[in-house]
Amino acid sequence: MSPAARVSKVGVLGAKGKVGREICRAVDEADGVELVAEVDQDDTLQTLVDTRAEAVVDFTHPDVVMDNLRFCIEHGIHAVVGTTGFDDERLETLRGWLADAPGVGVLIAPNFSIGAILMMRFAGQAARFYDSVEVVELHHPDKADAPSGTARRTAQLIAAARADAGLGAAPDATSTALDGARGASVDGIPVHALRIRGMVAHQEVVLGGPGETLTIRHDSMDRASFAPGVLRALGAIGERPGLTVGLEELLDLA
Amino acid sequence: MSPAARVSKVGVLGAKGKVGREICRAVDEADGVELVAEVDQDDTLQTLVDTRAEAVVDFTHPDVVMDNLRFCIEHGIHAVVGTTGFDDERLETLRGWLADAPGVGVLIAPNFSIGAILMMRFAGQAARFYDSVEVVELHHPDKADAPSGTARRTAQLIAAARADAGLGAAPDATSTALDGARGASVDGIPVHALRIRGMVAHQEVVLGGPGETLTIRHDSMDRASFAPGVLRALGAIGERPGLTVGLEELLDLA
Amino acid sequence: MSPAARVSKVGVLGAKGKVGREICRAVDEADGVELVAEVDQDDTLQTLVDTRAEAVVDFTHPDVVMDNLRFCIEHGIHAVVGTTGFDDERLETLRGWLADAPGVGVLIAPNFSIGAILMMRFAGQAARFYDSVEVVELHHPDKADAPSGTARRTAQLIAAARADAGLGAAPDATSTALDGARGASVDGIPVHALRIRGMVAHQEVVLGGPGETLTIRHDSMDRASFAPGVLRALGAIGERPGLTVGLEELLDLA
Amino acid sequence: MSPAARVSKVGVLGAKGKVGREICRAVDEADGVELVAEVDQDDTLQTLVDTRAEAVVDFTHPDVVMDNLRFCIEHGIHAVVGTTGFDDERLETLRGWLADAPGVGVLIAPNFSIGAILMMRFAGQAARFYDSVEVVELHHPDKADAPSGTARRTAQLIAAARADAGLGAAPDATSTALDGARGASVDGIPVHALRIRGMVAHQEVVLGGPGETLTIRHDSMDRASFAPGVLRALGAIGERPGLTVGLEELLDLA
Repeated sequence: MSPAARVSKVGVLGAKGKVGREICRAVDEADGVELVAEVDQDDTLQTLVDTRAEAVVDFTHPDVVMDNLRFCIEHGIHAVVGTTGFDDERLETLRGWLADAPGVGVLIAPNFSIGAILMMRFAGQAARFYDSVEVVELHHPDKADAPSGTARRTAQLIAAARADAGLGAAPDATSTALDGARGASVDGIPVHALRIRGMVAHQEVVLGGPGETLTIRHDSMDRASFAPGVLRALGAIGERPGLTVGLEELLDLA
Repeated sequence: MSPAARVSKVGVLGAKGKVGREICRAVDEADGVELVAEVDQDDTLQTLVDTRAEAVVDFTHPDVVMDNLRFCIEHGIHAVVGTTGFDDERLETLRGWLADAPGVGVLIAPNFSIGAILMMRFAGQAARFYDSVEVVELHHPDKADAPSGTARRTAQLIAAARADAGLGAAPDATSTALDGARGASVDGIPVHALRIRGMVAHQEVVLGGPGETLTIRHDSMDRASFAPGVLRALGAIGERPGLTVGLEELLDLA
Repeated sequence: MSPAARVSKVGVLGAKGKVGREICRAVDEADGVELVAEVDQDDTLQTLVDTRAEAVVDFTHPDVVMDNLRFCIEHGIHAVVGTTGFDDERLETLRGWLADAPGVGVLIAPNFSIGAILMMRFAGQAARFYDSVEVVELHHPDKADAPSGTARRTAQLIAAARADAGLGAAPDATSTALDGARGASVDGIPVHALRIRGMVAHQEVVLGGPGETLTIRHDSMDRASFAPGVLRALGAIGERPGLTVGLEELLDLA
Repeated sequence: MSPAARVSKVGVLGAKGKVGREICRAVDEADGVELVAEVDQDDTLQTLVDTRAEAVVDFTHPDVVMDNLRFCIEHGIHAVVGTTGFDDERLETLRGWLADAPGVGVLIAPNFSIGAILMMRFAGQAARFYDSVEVVELHHPDKADAPSGTARRTAQLIAAARADAGLGAAPDATSTALDGARGASVDGIPVHALRIRGMVAHQEVVLGGPGETLTIRHDSMDRASFAPGVLRALGAIGERPGLTVGLEELLDLA
């Protein structure tokens, strides 16, 4: 395998899961890549070697993903990973394995939604220009956590950008408030969570200064929204040896 | 004065206040009404009689509004009142005075924004059809209370409509939440308040059921938004003897 | 069958179509109604009689719906119909059949989305209070017509409400415009159609007067949005003999 | 004057115009800058020298702005210019004058709204990731042109970004349309213009791909929105000798 080739033969790990099935369909329909292996929990990883897979997409489970990745790295197969549960220790382990496998690329990404990534990035870039900023997220009412992980990360990025720019707290003359009216504070940024039947996953960042406001909104209506991000990652991973954390690193954002 | 005539000669009480000036300008520019008296705190109410005012608009102060209204009712002058501070006792007093002045009409309204009134009404009508509903209000950061009075009233109306329809609590599986993330609860309806520089006064009611959502949003950008409501009230008050509370009563809503 | 009983046994015609399957699932899961017959094109209508269906839901085809309805009316079975293609002649035919079947109710509705119905109703109610109003609809890019039928009907309702209120054309000082910039005109109301990948079916009515705007937005994300309207219709049809056109007639809107 | 000093003494040209008055007020209230001269058409530019102005803000008229700038450049005074009418020839002339005045900086900017600049920039960055994109602008109904200049520029930027990324036309299966329903085409990007009483200046860029959409919205409610952009320009112009076109060049955007 040449170290910087664009991959074309792709295997999917966790192929029968909800996300996995979408990924299989997307790889199957996309130009330039070919779905050569659909691996789920009762299947052997050897299939990847037999089918000459050049890269895998892994949406499996924290319990098995490290074994999957060791196998892939040892066999020179790139990996695009959406499975959760990567802490610093796991990332360090991966770096160690990859040091022995020059040319192999692994991407670990908590979020493959390009829209969510752009929303966070734009919110971070705009934050230093505005006096005020708050985050509103809206999800289906079966969600267990409030606010969402994406909303928390967005608020943290905004708070860091404001701190870098030397901005203090946003103006707020509230002196009489009902409990909770002003939302949760994440690093000082108010975050509001709505739970509405019929919604899927939506987020709005509202920024304002004298006489104007800027609103960045992301609406995710369907699991299909992960597919373009995975395909972009597959298009880039062959030319990105070593460990990459976060899809944004592969998007060539200015 | 005939008991059911459309008024044309109008006086403004509190004519030099911020709202009063807007009202003067609006009456002056409107067809079918004539601004005959601009009365402020150093002026005498006798001006209203001298100029043959048929109706007044009162945006003054709780301390003086009852004296103003007694004078108007005694002189057969209708009144459209945006001044605050009317409790049940004051309303009862007005009813007594009006009983002795058949044909005179007085409107007491906490809100002359037609958009705010329609938003509340539509929210109340829609509430019984949806599993979920929450209120988001956005105001400039100099506002002292959170949520706004309009947002509270909206939530109360929604809660009452849901109770009438036999709806229980909205679905919400939240099990892990940061304090405040799910907003304030007003009669069980979540209300979220944002404070953003550049905003004026904005509110959104978000309703949702399986596969669909309905959003009703009101944006008030300028004090001028009170004027159309005042003009409509002036157009109707001559044909509406006695006490009326709430502009919505004069809007001929179905 | 008593003429005004609430139906409980329900058959679905067109049970294997996309919408039909959703309807079957919704009836099956709902309290108070029981799915007794799933009829598709190779099945006999006699099944409805055999299973003692009290009402049917018909999402079939213009070619077969009249035969379906004649059978149902003759057998004293109520019908809730979402199939298209009803012109005045067909409605007249139905009225004739129903005249001979006292107690049987038939609802013909072009739209079972409660949100779309409320949006249209609220837009019509609000129209007379505002100088300006325009309609924006956003759909997936596979849609053949622009603007959507719902957007056209909304604009027609708004235009009629404005005419009733004596309002003339909305203000518009545009003197230099690119072709199409100001949208399509439906009875004088500008309608704008966006086609965006990822969207499903969305519509916004924007109304504005001095200093304020009111926006009514409906987002339909999923075919499931038809189900609550169908269930409401089933809940009401047993007490609504004769022909009813439009779900709004059954919603007890003020 | 040192070539890279932060300016503190500021003169305003066109000080009595609508925008000029806002600029005077903003400079007066801002920390770190001092309003030393308010110059309008009956005043002499010599005032700038007498008051030791280090920079000017020019919101005047195409007929006089070149004379103003020649005077400023000759006297070593930086200029932040919002006056319109700069074509290539004028820019070339300015470059010539500045070549003889090392250390003097001139910024020519068609737009000082930071929100509008960020909206355009983000729209351009996001464009290559999405199948579909359209622009909707909403303005007060006294506006003469449709679509707005900002909407046109936004569409041009988006079209250029799509072309760079090798994207073809957005998907659109429309086969039956009313004239204008799909908006105006600016370099192939649909642009829709609404004219609504109560609105000021608003724009939304809607992007969509499989299962998700991204919306970037800018709301400008007040002329005050120009002030932060002018103040940022004043903060940077002293360290930016030569000619700069476009405020975005001074915003240190990544």
